[in-house]
Order: sequence, then C-alpha cells, then structure tokens
Amino acid sequence: MTADTISEIWSKLETAERRTLSQLFASDPERVENLSQRIEFEIPEHGINGLLLDWSKTHLDSDLLDAFEDLAEASGFAVARQALFDGGIVNPSEGRPATHGAMRRSGTEAQVEEAEALLTRMGMLVEAIHQGALGEIKHLIHIGIGGSALGPDLAVDALTRDLELVDVHVVSNIDGLALEQAFAACDPQTTLIAVASKTFTTTETMTNAESALKWLADNGVGDPSGRVIALTANPERAVEWGVDETRILPFPESVGGRYSLWSSIGFPVALATGMDDFRAMLAGAHAIDTHFRETEGRANAPLLAAFADRYYARVRGCQTRAVFAYDERLALFPDYLQQLEMESNGKSVTSDGDPVGGPTAAVTWGGVGTDAQHAVFQLLHQGTHVIPVDFIASIAAGDELDPAHHKALLANCFAQGAALMAGGNMSADGKDPARGFAGDRPSATILVDDLDAGMLGALIAFHEHRTFANAVLMGINPFDQFGVELGKKMARDMEGGEGDFDPSTRSLMDAAGLV
Amino acid sequence: MTADTISEIWSKLETAERRTLSQLFASDPERVENLSQRIEFEIPEHGINGLLLDWSKTHLDSDLLDAFEDLAEASGFAVARQALFDGGIVNPSEGRPATHGAMRRSGTEAQVEEAEALLTRMGMLVEAIHQGALGEIKHLIHIGIGGSALGPDLAVDALTRDLELVDVHVVSNIDGLALEQAFAACDPQTTLIAVASKTFTTTETMTNAESALKWLADNGVGDPSGRVIALTANPERAVEWGVDETRILPFPESVGGRYSLWSSIGFPVALATGMDDFRAMLAGAHAIDTHFRETEGRANAPLLAAFADRYYARVRGCQTRAVFAYDERLALFPDYLQQLEMESNGKSVTSDGDPVGGPTAAVTWGGVGTDAQHAVFQLLHQGTHVIPVDFIASIAAGDELDPAHHKALLANCFAQGAALMAGGNMSADGKDPARGFAGDRPSATILVDDLDAGMLGALIAFHEHRTFANAVLMGINPFDQFGVELGKKMARDMEGGEGDFDPSTRSLMDAAGLV
Repeated sequence: MTADTISEIWSKLETAERRTLSQLFASDPERVENLSQRIEFEIPEHGINGLLLDWSKTHLDSDLLDAFEDLAEASGFAVARQALFDGGIVNPSEGRPATHGAMRRSGTEAQVEEAEALLTRMGMLVEAIHQGALGEIKHLIHIGIGGSALGPDLAVDALTRDLELVDVHVVSNIDGLALEQAFAACDPQTTLIAVASKTFTTTETMTNAESALKWLADNGVGDPSGRVIALTANPERAVEWGVDETRILPFPESVGGRYSLWSSIGFPVALATGMDDFRAMLAGAHAIDTHFRETEGRANAPLLAAFADRYYARVRGCQTRAVFAYDERLALFPDYLQQLEMESNGKSVTSDGDPVGGPTAAVTWGGVGTDAQHAVFQLLHQGTHVIPVDFIASIAAGDELDPAHHKALLANCFAQGAALMAGGNMSADGKDPARGFAGDRPSATILVDDLDAGMLGALIAFHEHRTFANAVLMGINPFDQFGVELGKKMARDMEGGEGDFDPSTRSLMDAAGLV
Repeated sequence: MTADTISEIWSKLETAERRTLSQLFASDPERVENLSQRIEFEIPEHGINGLLLDWSKTHLDSDLLDAFEDLAEASGFAVARQALFDGGIVNPSEGRPATHGAMRRSGTEAQVEEAEALLTRMGMLVEAIHQGALGEIKHLIHIGIGGSALGPDLAVDALTRDLELVDVHVVSNIDGLALEQAFAACDPQTTLIAVASKTFTTTETMTNAESALKWLADNGVGDPSGRVIALTANPERAVEWGVDETRILPFPESVGGRYSLWSSIGFPVALATGMDDFRAMLAGAHAIDTHFRETEGRANAPLLAAFADRYYARVRGCQTRAVFAYDERLALFPDYLQQLEMESNGKSVTSDGDPVGGPTAAVTWGGVGTDAQHAVFQLLHQGTHVIPVDFIASIAAGDELDPAHHKALLANCFAQGAALMAGGNMSADGKDPARGFAGDRPSATILVDDLDAGMLGALIAFHEHRTFANAVLMGINPFDQFGVELGKKMARDMEGGEGDFDPSTRSLMDAAGLV
C-alpha cells in the first residue's frame, strides 16, 4: 500500500522478460480466450447488443497481469472505484465528487433521483419543442467549447445519419468563421440557439452567443433571447444574461465538462435523435458502469485496457496511443477521446502533489479507417516509434450500399491488426529492407454488434472508466484541469493591454497590431 | 561526408549544453531577429502577402545551428535539393524524380512546359463546366483517398468560405456511409463525379466510383459515365473503365500522391474557386520554392524548421509534434500534414537500406485553436511529455463579425506560446503543485498577413520542403510508401478467402462472419 510497494511492482514490470506477440500466441493456445471477452446488454425496445474486446494482440501476459493486479491493489483501485460511484470526493483539489455516472443511474440514490428529475425536465422541453411550442424549429446552433461541444458533436454525428429531427450545428471556436458557417446553413426564422457553458462565463461561448443573438435580431427575429436554451451549472448567471428560467436546463456542479454529455449538455443530441435514443445512450453507458463496478482484476475490461496503456507508456516508452474507428459515424471519436484522456490525465503530479513516478497520459490521436491507411499507416508499420493501436468496428453495416463496401471495411480493419503483428517482407526475394516490416506491433480491437445509441453510450463509458483506471494506477486526480489556467490568464492580460511578455511574443503582438 | 562524420555531429548535438528558453533569450538580445524572418511575395492581381516565421521559442542556439549546418552539408543537402528541382532521381526505390514542383513552375524547362500544358487543359475543362458545357452543374462528388483526397479537401474548405462556385463533397472511405452522406447533399441531376486515383485501381476509390454511377443511374441520369471526370496518371485505364478521353485530366507518374494537389488532383479546387485562385495557390508555392532553392543554411526557413524537428525528435526524444492553426479555414491542415510528414518520413531505413541511426518522423497531430485549448492543452502545459508546438495564424480576419472575435483569437494564440515557455504557478501562494507549470516548452509561430489562395500554397510548400529537408538529414527517401503494402495484401487475401491468420484475427473474422 506504500510508495515502496508500488516501486517494487514497477521494477518487476520493467524487468519482466519481453516476449514477442508471436511467441505469446505460440506459448498459449488459450490466449485469445484469456485476453478477450464479450460484454452483452439489453435495452428495452432496443434489444440485445454486445461488444467484443480483444486485447490479445498486446504484450500483456499472465506475469504482467499478476503484477498489474498487484499494482491496482496497491493503488487502492477498489476503494477509489467505490468512491466514484458512492459520491466520494474523487476530485480533491476542487473538493467535489464526480457524479456524471448518476445521469445514467450509476450513483447514490439521491444523486440518481436528482439526475432523473433534471432529465425529465430536459425531456419535457425537448418534447415541447418537437411539438412546436417555440414555433417551427428546423435548426439548432449549439454554442459551447471543449466538453460542452465535443460530446454533442460526436453523438449527433454518430446517431443522426438516417434522420435528424432538427439540423444541429455545433459552434465552438472564437474564430468568427465558425459561427458564420453555421449562419450560412440556417434560417434565422426557424433557428434555436443553445448556449452551453458550465459556468456561463466561458469567453468563447459568451462572445459567440452575443454574436448569434445579434444575427437573429439583424434578421428580423423579434425576441432573440426567447430563442435561447441555456445548458449550465450556473442557472443564476444565465438568468442575469437574459434567459428565461423555463428555458434553462441545469446540471450539477459535480459533473465535469468532459463528462457532461450525459447531462443537459446532451440537449442537442436529445433534440436531434429524440429522448428515446438519448435514454438508450444512457442505458448503454449504465451497462458498462455495471461491468466496471462489479468485475474484479483482469476480467474488468476498462481496467485491463488501463493495464496495457500503462505498460506501453511506462515500460515501452510509447508517448502516444492511436485509435482508428473503421466507421464514419465515429469520425469524431478520436477528438472526443483526446480531450477525455489528455485533459484528465495529462498531468505531472498526483492528487497528493507529488511527482508521478513516470510518464502520464500519452498523446491520443487517430482517425477513420480506411482513410488513415492511405495517410498515416506507413509510419505505424515502418516508422521507428511503437504505437499501440485500438481498432473499433461494427459488425452491422451503417450503410445501405452494396455489401461489398462493409465487407471490405471490416477486412481492412482486421488485416491491419494482423499485419502490424505479423510483419514480413514484401519484396520478391524477401530481402529489400525498404519493403521490410518489423512486426510485433501491438493493437487491440473492439468489435461491436451494432453501433446504435446504446452502443455509443457503452463505448464512451468504457473509455471514461479506462481513463479513471489509468488515473488510479498513477495516483492522479482526473477530474480537475488547472493546466488550462495560465494560458487563459495571459490571453486576458494581453487583450487588456496588461502583462509582461517575452521578446518573441512582443514581436508577434507588434506584427499583428495587438499592442 | 561519411557516416562517421554524421555520428560525430550527432554526438556534438546530443552533448551540447542545454539552456532553457529563458536563458537563451536572456543571453541574446538579438534572438528574435536571429531566429525569425519574414518572407514576402507578390502575385499579380493578388498583391503582396507575407509570412513571419518565428522559431525563437525553440531551443536552437548558435552552437546547435552550426552543428546542424554541418549535418546538412555532411548529408548532401545542397546536392539533394538541386536534384529535386533538376529532375534527378530523388525517389531511387521507384527510380523516379519527384516533379510536383514543376506544376508550380519550379523544375526543369521541359517538366514545367509539360506541367503547363496539363494545367491549361484542366483550365479549359473547368472553364467549359462553368460555362455549362456539361449542363447545369451545382455539385461535385470528388472520390479519392489519401493524397487524392486530403489536399482537395483542405484547399476547398480553406478557400471557399465566401463563395463556392460548385458545391464539393470529398468522399474517401470505403465505408458506404461516406458516399451516402454526399448523396444526401447532392441532386443527381446536377452532380458531377470526379474519380481521382493515380493508378486508377485504388480499391476504395473504384468501389465508390461504381456505387456513385449506380446512384446516378438509379436516379434517372441517362449517361452516368458522361458525368465522370478522371484525374489520374493512368489515362489508359480510365478509358477502359469507360471515361471519355475529353474528360480525363492526366498528371505525370513522377508526381507522388501526397504531393499531387498541384496537379489535376486539384481539379475540385479549381472548379470550386476558379482557375485564378488555383493559379494563385501555385504561385504562392513557387515563392517558397524560390526561397528554399536560393537560401543557404539557417536562413533557409524550411531547413531551419527541419533542424528543430530533428533536434526535438532525436536529442529530446519527442515522439510527436503538434500543430494548431488558430483559423477555422485550416481545420484540415493537421490531417494534411499528418500524411505529408508521416507517410514521407515514417520509415526505418535510409535510401541505401541501412537502419536510420535514430528516430525518424514524429507523430504529427494537432487541431484548431481556440478549440484545442479546451481539450488537449492541459497535457501540453502540465503533462510529462515535451511536445514541440507550431502555431499558425492570420493577421487579417477571415470573418466579418465583431472584430473582438479575431482579436481574441490572436491573443489566445500568442498567449499560449508565451505561457508554454514562461511557466509559473497559478495558486495564491505560488506553491500548489497541481497549479504549477514547468514552462520551458518550445513552440514556433507562423503568422501570415492574409490567408488567401497564394498563402495556402506557400504554407503547404513550406511544409513539403521542411519534410524533404528532414528526409535529407536522415538519409531517407521521402517519396515512396512501401509501408502500406502489407496490410493491403492481407486485406485482399482475407476478402478472397485466402491467407493464414493469427488466432486473434481468425476469431474476429469469425465473429464478423468474414470466413
């Protein structure tokens, strides 16, 4: 339970014999069974769905897993996990619990009850808008940034390919071009504005919100404020800003920005897909919560993934991990995971303020297959850096074109993982170094039955818990983000004509006329 | 000139005294002047434009620069550069020159003449389409992948925010959802299909092209093939496939996929922006070609950037580099650079087949500011990995909203670079480790006067030459990409029911019914 125990375990992990993936498969005929599992869940009206998580093409073996299970114990994993679901102060620097789980019925009774009341309120507003209570509404400009943008953007894009009840445009950047692009696509007479900000003070969001109101007014909308829905943990501030209480959808202070899709920040998702799909998304996440809560050791899928993450980051020195979804609907998933993982665990000190003894979060990056095969896979196969890769794919096709499309999509996905591991040489005589592949490169695959709303919720929850498990193994508080404060302050100073800047920055300010 | 000389130089670079950025600024009052420069160019009808390249917030100092200039000499930089522009065989594994420069008038007289003839041909077709020769055309579905998609997608997105002459949809993924999304946005009666493939055999592209023709036919278009424009280095194959010669726009075999935006692969850009802007893009690239060709040592901007890239990759062990454009118009630029840099230099052996003595291309990743500040900057400021960052911004605003938007955009851009370098502690007593910033984190800034077509060409050409310079310093051939071959072959085998796969891959195939 001490730092010494943890150091000892890391020594064991670092000095363990390193076998290649081929050797690991050769020595254990049960390897696939041991390192993969299927999680299945049923959602009323949506049926049974499942996901296969295959971590067998990573370098984890039973010795490493034993050591990692010891590490989890020495790091207080079970206690931390219980605190997460029991409303304990898992965010000590801000003195808060993290109650996003409660939005999906995973939390204390009181929290779940509060969350349920908030969801019911959101559902009523969504229903009222669909029924025409705010006039004819065809478009929603959702204004938010970071956690208030990435989740809604991902879920709307993933779930409304067939039918979007309302056309949603997520605008985050302070660059006016972002808002202008949304304006060009929307009719002001039939457009709602959602303003999403936990504090209702975020500079980008409030500046964009003002410009959006001006656009409505300039285009003859009589009561622009009457078109605003506020999504915030600070309803008082939204009222001051001019939003009527009936159009404010609050969420609890204890729901962090990058974990807020489940709360009223998910309003655009509910508006575009309907509350039924939104509820299914929550139910899918709940299924993974239950698995995470009730499963011990390596059988716990998010924990197993965290073991591999920590192994590659610390023992193999991998500074990145990549994720490639072989599905257009998950095009925004790598961006979503970047924030989730890098903002949660991209830190240097533990929650006690001590230096973390080793590298923390890797850079998460990725893209969509098969596109990425024609862009960055060259480096994955022949570059000098080892990059652990996650592949994600859906057995059920999302498209209705010739099945040849989907068959090729899946074959490419599986073939890439196979090729990274196998290696070989593609030249005629097998000797041309330029055509050689070292192989032994790790990957994991998540293969889902069908990528519907419930499954999207499950995938996101899996990664939330994986991130949490990584944090526990490092002793990090994943729920604060003080690293964004310094740059914000310096930007404010610069805009206000204050502050003292280095010569390079002064010369840039001078060139741009920012003085 | 020998491997020994190169090793000696690297020893010098690796053992050089390491001073912090603050120390470097303190010791040299001319540092900004020494490590930044303005490049200016004039394009007829488009006026004068310029870019300020500031590398002063990197750890390069005069000792390191002396050593890197020695490295460039020992690596044969001058000869390689001359070969690039003189049509020498700079791609030895495929026995080819790399003549993308000729498309922008940087090459041998014969190559430039050939390129000019091809461009004139493309211009005539673009003009004819704008004049209605193919009927009323409102939409273009551009089908291509990798180098045949990323360049057109970037340039159309960057340059047509004000006015798109034809509505362009770039489709690359074999996932049928990508094509369906384009179908949903286009009227088949007024849609052209561009099929972009160097070999005209790329699986994804040809499958998507077939499905697009079927869509036209199913929707009552009488002669679907008559709606196809082929962009290819294999015109014979396009004719066989059914495209009339008058609608084939060829480009030379010696133009590589990821360097092909300048050729007929840029057709959608010309169609959407007009030939005048397309020509301006080429002219902007030409200005950088001239700078790169005629400037020696550290004063050569792409070479200086390559010095920093190599320094961080090899001496500081940085496995990634990040680029953040503070401009919505460059939202796709990080994706473009990923392919350019990672596919060119993500290799393990030199052009002679020897192992490269050290890490090759870093993982290029990034995003758009200010969005990224609310997602991944936490890790940049407080994570354990040092990540060299490039910032890109435009002094002239792209939007027409309240100037407060653009002012805040620029202030944030400059403040982030300042904050990464300065560090500090944001707690009241300056002692809370969770609110501490180590600082001394490097960045470079490219500040352009105005992000128009010429400047986009200049930015891309700068990065092409930076990539080439990196390759020369490592002895790599940046113009082949054999690393993509193994996965392709295994996917073909899998689809054809052939091949022998590992147990994990077999189990995935089994689960997906791919057997």
